[in-house]
Amino acid sequence: MRRIADSTVRRLSLYLRFLEESTNRGLVTISSDELARRGGTTSAQVRKDLSFFGSFGKRGLGYSVPELTESLREILGLRRDWQVIIVGAGKIGTALAQYRGFRQRGFRVTAVYDRDPKKIGTRWDALTVRDMAEIERDIQKEHPDIAVLTTPAEEAQVVVDRLVSAGMRALLNFAPIQLQVPPDVTLKNVNMAMELEGLSFALTNRDR
Amino acid sequence: MRRIADSTVRRLSLYLRFLEESTNRGLVTISSDELARRGGTTSAQVRKDLSFFGSFGKRGLGYSVPELTESLREILGLRRDWQVIIVGAGKIGTALAQYRGFRQRGFRVTAVYDRDPKKIGTRWDALTVRDMAEIERDIQKEHPDIAVLTTPAEEAQVVVDRLVSAGMRALLNFAPIQLQVPPDVTLKNVNMAMELEGLSFALTNRDR
Repeated sequence: MRRIADSTVRRLSLYLRFLEESTNRGLVTISSDELARRGGTTSAQVRKDLSFFGSFGKRGLGYSVPELTESLREILGLRRDWQVIIVGAGKIGTALAQYRGFRQRGFRVTAVYDRDPKKIGTRWDALTVRDMAEIERDIQKEHPDIAVLTTPAEEAQVVVDRLVSAGMRALLNFAPIQLQVPPDVTLKNVNMAMELEGLSFALTNRDR
Repeated sequence: MRRIADSTVRRLSLYLRFLEESTNRGLVTISSDELARRGGTTSAQVRKDLSFFGSFGKRGLGYSVPELTESLREILGLRRDWQVIIVGAGKIGTALAQYRGFRQRGFRVTAVYDRDPKKIGTRWDALTVRDMAEIERDIQKEHPDIAVLTTPAEEAQVVVDRLVSAGMRALLNFAPIQLQVPPDVTLKNVNMAMELEGLSFALTNRDR
Protein backbone atom coordinates (compact mmCIF):
# COMPACT_ATOMS: atom_id res chain seq x y z
CA MET A 1 0.00 0.00 0.00
CA ARG A 2 1.16 3.51 -0.82
CA ARG A 3 2.35 5.70 2.04
CA ILE A 4 -0.66 7.78 3.09
CA ALA A 5 0.03 11.21 4.62
CA ASP A 6 -0.98 11.84 8.24
CA SER A 7 -3.10 14.77 7.06
CA THR A 8 -5.12 12.40 4.82
CA VAL A 9 -5.74 9.98 7.69
CA ARG A 10 -6.85 12.87 9.89
CA ARG A 11 -9.36 13.96 7.25
CA LEU A 12 -10.69 10.39 6.96
CA SER A 13 -11.38 10.53 10.72
CA LEU A 14 -13.25 13.80 10.28
CA TYR A 15 -15.29 12.44 7.36
CA LEU A 16 -16.23 9.41 9.47
CA ARG A 17 -17.45 11.66 12.28
CA PHE A 18 -19.58 13.64 9.87
CA LEU A 19 -21.01 10.47 8.35
CA GLU A 20 -21.96 9.19 11.80
CA GLU A 21 -23.72 12.46 12.57
CA SER A 22 -25.46 12.24 9.19
CA THR A 23 -26.68 8.75 10.08
CA ASN A 24 -28.09 10.12 13.34
CA ARG A 25 -29.89 12.80 11.34
CA GLY A 26 -31.38 10.13 9.05
CA LEU A 27 -29.44 11.00 5.89
CA VAL A 28 -28.86 8.25 3.34
CA THR A 29 -26.57 9.98 0.85
CA ILE A 30 -24.03 12.76 1.14
CA SER A 31 -22.09 14.83 -1.40
CA SER A 32 -18.33 15.34 -1.54
CA ASP A 33 -19.06 19.07 -1.03
CA GLU A 34 -20.65 18.35 2.34
CA LEU A 35 -17.79 16.06 3.38
CA ALA A 36 -15.32 18.72 2.23
CA ARG A 37 -16.89 21.34 4.46
CA ARG A 38 -16.54 19.01 7.41
CA GLY A 39 -12.93 18.16 6.63
CA GLY A 40 -12.01 21.81 6.06
CA THR A 41 -11.02 21.03 2.48
CA THR A 42 -12.27 20.89 -1.13
CA SER A 43 -14.47 18.30 -2.80
CA ALA A 44 -11.56 17.45 -5.14
CA GLN A 45 -9.47 16.63 -2.07
CA VAL A 46 -12.25 14.45 -0.65
CA ARG A 47 -12.38 12.45 -3.87
CA LYS A 48 -8.59 12.14 -3.91
CA ASP A 49 -8.46 11.07 -0.23
CA LEU A 50 -11.02 8.32 -0.85
CA SER A 51 -9.49 7.23 -4.17
CA PHE A 52 -6.49 5.78 -2.32
CA PHE A 53 -8.76 3.10 -0.94
CA GLY A 54 -11.09 2.18 -3.78
CA SER A 55 -14.04 3.52 -5.70
CA PHE A 56 -16.81 5.17 -3.71
CA GLY A 57 -19.91 7.11 -4.65
CA LYS A 58 -21.59 7.81 -7.97
CA ARG A 59 -21.18 11.00 -9.97
CA GLY A 60 -24.18 13.22 -9.31
CA LEU A 61 -25.57 10.95 -6.61
CA GLY A 62 -22.94 11.37 -3.91
CA TYR A 63 -21.92 8.74 -1.41
CA SER A 64 -24.09 6.21 0.37
CA VAL A 65 -23.82 7.18 4.05
CA PRO A 66 -23.97 3.61 5.46
CA GLU A 67 -21.56 2.18 2.88
CA LEU A 68 -18.96 4.94 3.21
CA THR A 69 -19.26 4.78 7.02
CA GLU A 70 -18.46 1.07 7.00
CA SER A 71 -15.61 1.54 4.51
CA LEU A 72 -13.99 4.29 6.57
CA ARG A 73 -14.31 2.21 9.74
CA GLU A 74 -12.54 -0.61 7.98
CA ILE A 75 -9.83 1.66 6.49
CA LEU A 76 -9.16 3.26 9.88
CA GLY A 77 -8.96 -0.11 11.60
CA LEU A 78 -12.05 0.51 13.73
CA ARG A 79 -13.88 -2.76 13.11
CA ARG A 80 -12.02 -4.38 15.98
CA ASP A 81 -11.00 -3.41 19.51
CA TRP A 82 -7.51 -2.19 20.34
CA GLN A 83 -5.78 -2.73 23.68
CA VAL A 84 -4.21 0.47 24.95
CA ILE A 85 -1.79 0.82 27.86
CA ILE A 86 -1.03 4.14 29.55
CA VAL A 87 2.49 4.69 30.82
CA GLY A 88 2.66 7.42 33.46
CA ALA A 89 -0.11 7.79 36.04
CA GLY A 90 0.04 11.59 36.35
CA LYS A 91 -2.79 14.03 35.67
CA ILE A 92 -2.91 13.61 31.90
CA GLY A 93 -2.62 9.84 32.27
CA THR A 94 -5.58 9.84 34.68
CA ALA A 95 -7.67 11.97 32.36
CA LEU A 96 -6.94 9.70 29.38
CA ALA A 97 -7.57 6.45 31.26
CA GLN A 98 -11.11 7.64 31.97
CA TYR A 99 -11.76 9.35 28.64
CA ARG A 100 -15.08 8.02 27.34
CA GLY A 101 -14.22 8.88 23.74
CA PHE A 102 -11.63 6.09 23.62
CA ARG A 103 -13.92 3.22 24.48
CA GLN A 104 -16.61 4.50 22.10
CA ARG A 105 -14.07 4.02 19.29
CA GLY A 106 -12.92 0.58 20.41
CA PHE A 107 -9.79 1.75 22.22
CA ARG A 108 -9.83 -0.14 25.53
CA VAL A 109 -7.41 1.00 28.20
CA THR A 110 -6.28 -2.28 29.73
CA ALA A 111 -3.40 -1.20 31.99
CA VAL A 112 -1.77 1.87 33.55
CA TYR A 113 1.85 1.93 34.73
CA ASP A 114 3.92 4.13 37.01
CA ARG A 115 7.16 3.79 38.92
CA ASP A 116 6.02 5.81 41.94
CA PRO A 117 5.43 3.37 44.86
CA LYS A 118 2.71 5.73 46.16
CA LYS A 119 0.73 5.26 42.94
CA ILE A 120 1.36 1.56 42.29
CA GLY A 121 -1.60 -0.51 43.47
CA THR A 122 -4.07 2.40 43.59
CA ARG A 123 -7.32 1.81 41.74
CA TRP A 124 -8.75 3.88 38.92
CA ASP A 125 -12.25 2.65 38.16
CA ALA A 126 -11.69 -0.89 36.90
CA LEU A 127 -7.89 -0.46 36.60
CA THR A 128 -5.12 -0.83 39.17
CA VAL A 129 -1.91 1.14 38.60
CA ARG A 130 0.82 -1.41 37.88
CA ASP A 131 4.53 -1.30 38.63
CA MET A 132 6.62 -0.05 35.72
CA ALA A 133 9.14 -2.78 36.53
CA GLU A 134 6.68 -5.36 35.21
CA ILE A 135 5.87 -3.70 31.92
CA GLU A 136 8.12 -5.80 29.67
CA ARG A 137 6.75 -9.04 31.11
CA ASP A 138 3.15 -7.80 30.78
CA ILE A 139 3.65 -6.68 27.17
CA GLN A 140 5.02 -10.06 26.19
CA LYS A 141 2.12 -11.80 27.93
CA GLU A 142 -0.79 -9.50 27.06
CA HIS A 143 0.25 -8.06 23.69
CA PRO A 144 -1.25 -4.59 23.96
CA ASP A 145 -1.53 -2.77 20.62
CA ILE A 146 -0.89 0.85 21.51
CA ALA A 147 1.04 2.57 24.31
CA VAL A 148 0.19 6.11 25.39
CA LEU A 149 3.15 7.91 26.96
CA THR A 150 2.40 10.43 29.69
CA THR A 151 5.69 10.33 31.61
CA PRO A 152 7.78 13.44 32.35
CA ALA A 153 9.80 14.53 29.30
CA GLU A 154 13.14 13.56 30.81
CA GLU A 155 12.06 9.93 31.29
CA ALA A 156 10.25 9.47 28.01
CA GLN A 157 13.07 8.24 25.74
CA VAL A 158 14.21 5.58 28.23
CA VAL A 159 10.63 4.38 28.59
CA VAL A 160 10.10 4.31 24.83
CA ASP A 161 13.26 2.24 24.34
CA ARG A 162 11.93 -0.28 26.86
CA LEU A 163 8.50 -0.40 25.21
CA VAL A 164 9.98 -0.89 21.75
CA SER A 165 12.35 -3.61 22.97
CA ALA A 166 9.41 -5.38 24.55
CA GLY A 167 7.56 -5.32 21.22
CA MET A 168 5.31 -2.22 21.11
CA ARG A 169 4.88 -0.90 17.57
CA ALA A 170 2.46 2.03 18.02
CA LEU A 171 3.02 4.91 20.43
CA LEU A 172 1.12 8.08 21.24
CA ASN A 173 3.43 10.51 23.03
CA PHE A 174 2.21 13.34 25.28
CA ALA A 175 5.65 14.14 26.73
CA PRO A 176 6.90 17.45 25.31
CA ILE A 177 10.02 15.97 23.69
CA GLN A 178 10.92 14.56 20.28
CA LEU A 179 11.47 10.80 20.64
CA GLN A 180 13.56 8.46 18.50
CA VAL A 181 12.02 5.19 17.37
CA PRO A 182 13.00 2.55 14.78
CA PRO A 183 11.33 2.83 11.33
CA ASP A 184 8.91 -0.04 11.98
CA VAL A 185 7.39 1.79 14.98
CA THR A 186 4.65 4.37 14.45
CA LEU A 187 4.94 7.34 16.77
CA LYS A 188 2.44 10.18 17.02
CA ASN A 189 2.96 13.23 19.20
CA VAL A 190 0.39 15.34 21.01
CA ASN A 191 1.95 18.54 22.29
CA MET A 192 -0.45 20.76 24.18
CA ALA A 193 1.78 23.84 24.05
CA MET A 194 2.22 23.44 20.29
CA GLU A 195 -1.53 23.49 19.85
CA LEU A 196 -1.63 26.81 21.68
CA GLU A 197 1.22 28.11 19.52
CA GLY A 198 -1.01 27.64 16.48
CA LEU A 199 -3.39 30.09 18.19
CA SER A 200 -0.76 32.60 19.30
CA PHE A 201 0.51 32.55 15.71
CA ALA A 202 -2.99 33.27 14.40
CA LEU A 203 -3.60 36.05 16.93
CA THR A 204 -0.20 37.66 16.25
CA ASN A 205 -0.40 37.57 12.49
CA ARG A 206 -3.99 38.71 12.40
CA ASP A 207 -3.10 41.81 14.39
CA ARG A 208 -0.31 42.86 12.02
CA MET B 1 -0.06 38.41 5.11
CA ARG B 2 -0.58 35.27 3.06
CA ARG B 3 -2.60 32.48 4.61
CA ILE B 4 -0.10 30.09 6.19
CA ALA B 5 -1.09 26.41 6.42
CA ASP B 6 -1.52 24.85 9.87
CA SER B 7 1.06 22.22 8.89
CA THR B 8 3.62 25.00 8.29
CA VAL B 9 2.95 26.57 11.69
CA ARG B 10 3.30 23.18 13.32
CA ARG B 11 6.70 22.68 11.69
CA LEU B 12 7.83 26.14 12.85
CA SER B 13 7.02 25.04 16.41
CA LEU B 14 9.11 21.90 15.92
CA TYR B 15 12.03 23.88 14.47
CA LEU B 16 11.90 26.21 17.46
CA ARG B 17 12.08 23.27 19.88
CA PHE B 18 15.09 21.87 18.06
CA LEU B 19 16.81 25.27 18.06
CA GLU B 20 16.28 25.57 21.80
CA GLU B 21 17.79 22.14 22.36
CA SER B 22 20.68 23.15 20.09
CA THR B 23 21.26 26.23 22.23
CA ASN B 24 21.38 24.02 25.31
CA ARG B 25 23.97 21.86 23.56
CA GLY B 26 26.05 24.96 22.77
CA LEU B 27 25.53 25.01 19.00
CA VAL B 28 25.82 28.35 17.20
CA THR B 29 24.78 27.42 13.67
CA ILE B 30 22.48 24.77 12.26
CA SER B 31 21.81 23.49 8.73
CA SER B 32 18.45 23.20 7.02
CA ASP B 33 19.14 19.44 6.82
CA GLU B 34 19.26 19.20 10.60
CA LEU B 35 16.09 21.28 10.98
CA ALA B 36 14.42 19.11 8.34
CA ARG B 37 15.17 15.95 10.28
CA ARG B 38 13.56 17.44 13.34
CA GLY B 39 10.48 18.62 11.48
CA GLY B 40 10.09 15.28 9.68
CA THR B 41 10.49 17.00 6.33
CA THR B 42 13.03 18.00 3.63
CA SER B 43 15.55 20.85 3.65
CA ALA B 44 13.72 22.38 0.67
CA GLN B 45 10.54 22.48 2.80
CA VAL B 46 12.44 24.11 5.69
CA ARG B 47 13.67 26.87 3.38
CA LYS B 48 10.18 27.31 1.96
CA ASP B 49 8.57 27.42 5.43
CA LEU B 50 10.99 30.13 6.57
CA SER B 51 10.80 32.09 3.30
CA PHE B 52 7.23 33.14 4.14
CA PHE B 53 8.63 35.29 6.92
CA GLY B 54 11.82 36.80 5.52
CA SER B 55 15.36 35.87 4.62
CA PHE B 56 17.23 33.66 7.07
CA GLY B 57 20.59 31.89 6.94
CA LYS B 58 23.44 31.97 4.45
CA ARG B 59 24.00 29.42 1.72
CA GLY B 60 26.66 26.96 2.88
CA LEU B 61 26.77 28.42 6.41
CA GLY B 62 23.36 27.43 7.69
CA TYR B 63 21.29 29.39 10.17
CA SER B 64 22.45 31.27 13.25
CA VAL B 65 20.83 29.42 16.16
CA PRO B 66 20.20 32.51 18.37
CA GLU B 67 18.90 34.65 15.49
CA LEU B 68 16.56 32.02 14.10
CA THR B 69 15.35 31.18 17.62
CA GLU B 70 14.40 34.81 18.22
CA SER B 71 12.78 35.12 14.79
CA LEU B 72 10.65 32.01 15.31
CA ARG B 73 9.59 33.19 18.77
CA GLU B 74 8.47 36.44 17.23
CA ILE B 75 6.70 34.75 14.29
CA LEU B 76 4.86 32.37 16.63
CA GLY B 77 3.83 35.21 18.94
CA LEU B 78 5.87 33.92 21.85
CA ARG B 79 7.63 37.16 22.83
CA ARG B 80 4.73 38.05 25.07
CA ASP B 81 2.48 36.28 27.56
CA TRP B 82 -0.99 35.06 26.65
CA GLN B 83 -3.89 34.81 29.06
CA VAL B 84 -5.64 31.46 28.79
CA ILE B 85 -8.96 30.49 30.35
CA ILE B 86 -10.12 26.90 30.71
CA VAL B 87 -13.81 26.21 30.35
CA GLY B 88 -14.83 22.91 31.93
CA ALA B 89 -13.24 21.77 35.19
CA GLY B 90 -13.29 18.04 34.46
CA LYS B 91 -10.30 15.72 34.35
CA ILE B 92 -8.75 17.06 31.15
CA GLY B 93 -9.36 20.63 32.31
CA THR B 94 -7.58 19.88 35.60
CA ALA B 95 -4.64 18.30 33.81
CA LEU B 96 -4.30 21.28 31.45
CA ALA B 97 -4.61 23.92 34.18
CA GLN B 98 -1.59 22.44 35.88
CA TYR B 99 0.40 21.58 32.75
CA ARG B 100 3.88 23.05 33.21
CA GLY B 101 4.55 23.17 29.47
CA PHE B 102 2.03 26.02 29.05
CA ARG B 103 3.66 28.46 31.42
CA GLN B 104 7.12 27.72 30.01
CA ARG B 105 5.82 29.01 26.68
CA GLY B 106 4.14 32.10 28.09
CA PHE B 107 0.61 30.65 28.19
CA ARG B 108 -0.73 31.64 31.62
CA VAL B 109 -3.92 29.97 32.77
CA THR B 110 -5.73 32.80 34.53
CA ALA B 111 -9.18 31.31 35.14
CA VAL B 112 -11.10 28.04 35.13
CA TYR B 113 -14.89 27.83 34.76
CA ASP B 114 -17.53 25.23 35.43
CA ARG B 115 -21.28 25.21 35.96
CA ASP B 116 -21.28 22.44 38.57
CA PRO B 117 -22.00 24.02 42.01
CA LYS B 118 -19.85 21.28 43.61
CA LYS B 119 -16.83 22.48 41.64
CA ILE B 120 -17.36 26.24 41.75
CA GLY B 121 -15.21 27.79 44.45
CA THR B 122 -12.83 24.84 44.79
CA ARG B 123 -9.15 25.73 44.54
CA TRP B 124 -6.62 24.39 42.06
CA ASP B 125 -3.19 25.60 43.07
CA ALA B 126 -3.43 29.37 42.62
CA LEU B 127 -6.78 29.22 40.78
CA THR B 128 -10.33 29.05 42.08
CA VAL B 129 -12.96 27.45 39.85
CA ARG B 130 -15.35 30.22 38.80
CA ASP B 131 -19.05 30.08 38.01
CA MET B 132 -19.79 29.69 34.30
CA ALA B 133 -22.58 32.25 34.75
CA GLU B 134 -19.96 34.97 35.17
CA ILE B 135 -17.85 34.16 32.14
CA GLU B 136 -19.17 36.89 29.80
CA ARG B 137 -18.67 39.58 32.42
CA ASP B 138 -15.15 38.29 33.20
CA ILE B 139 -14.14 38.16 29.52
CA GLN B 140 -15.25 41.73 28.98
CA LYS B 141 -13.34 42.85 32.08
CA GLU B 142 -10.17 40.72 31.86
CA HIS B 143 -9.76 40.24 28.10
CA PRO B 144 -8.28 36.74 28.04
CA ASP B 145 -6.63 35.83 24.72
CA ILE B 146 -7.35 32.13 24.36
CA ALA B 147 -10.11 29.84 25.66
CA VAL B 148 -9.53 26.11 26.05
CA LEU B 149 -12.75 24.12 25.87
CA THR B 150 -12.98 20.95 27.93
CA THR B 151 -16.75 20.71 28.40
CA PRO B 152 -18.79 17.62 27.47
CA ALA B 153 -19.41 17.43 23.71
CA GLU B 154 -23.13 18.14 24.01
CA GLU B 155 -22.53 21.47 25.77
CA ALA B 156 -19.61 22.67 23.67
CA GLN B 157 -21.42 24.56 20.88
CA VAL B 158 -23.58 26.54 23.31
CA VAL B 159 -20.49 27.45 25.32
CA VAL B 160 -18.57 28.45 22.19
CA ASP B 161 -21.40 30.70 21.07
CA ARG B 162 -21.29 32.43 24.44
CA LEU B 163 -17.49 32.82 24.34
CA VAL B 164 -17.56 34.25 20.82
CA SER B 165 -20.38 36.67 21.67
CA ALA B 166 -18.36 37.84 24.66
CA GLY B 167 -15.38 38.55 22.40
CA MET B 168 -13.09 35.48 22.38
CA ARG B 169 -11.24 35.07 19.07
CA ALA B 170 -9.03 32.02 19.67
CA LEU B 171 -10.31 28.65 20.87
CA LEU B 172 -8.69 25.30 21.51
CA ASN B 173 -11.37 22.61 21.62
CA PHE B 174 -10.95 19.26 23.38
CA ALA B 175 -14.63 18.28 23.15
CA PRO B 176 -15.05 15.50 20.55
CA ILE B 177 -17.37 17.49 18.29
CA GLN B 178 -16.99 19.76 15.27
CA LEU B 179 -17.83 23.32 16.32
CA GLN B 180 -19.08 26.20 14.20
CA VAL B 181 -17.41 29.60 14.60
CA PRO B 182 -17.48 32.84 12.58
CA PRO B 183 -14.60 33.38 10.10
CA ASP B 184 -12.78 35.86 12.34
CA VAL B 185 -12.43 33.27 15.13
CA THR B 186 -9.55 30.79 15.06
CA LEU B 187 -10.54 27.33 16.27
CA LYS B 188 -8.16 24.42 16.74
CA ASN B 189 -9.30 20.95 17.71
CA VAL B 190 -7.52 18.33 19.77
CA ASN B 191 -9.27 15.01 19.52
CA MET B 192 -7.70 12.26 21.58
CA ALA B 193 -9.56 9.45 19.84
CA MET B 194 -8.54 10.80 16.42
CA GLU B 195 -4.90 10.65 17.45
CA LEU B 196 -5.37 6.97 18.28
CA GLU B 197 -7.11 6.43 14.94
CA GLY B 198 -3.90 7.51 13.22
CA LEU B 199 -2.26 4.60 15.03
CA SER B 200 -5.00 2.04 14.37
CA PHE B 201 -4.78 3.05 10.70
CA ALA B 202 -1.02 2.49 10.69
CA LEU B 203 -1.32 -0.87 12.47
CA THR B 204 -4.12 -2.05 10.17
CA ASN B 205 -2.49 -1.04 6.92
CA ARG B 206 0.90 -2.39 7.94
CA ASP B 207 -0.60 -5.80 8.63
CA ARG B 208 -2.22 -6.08 5.21
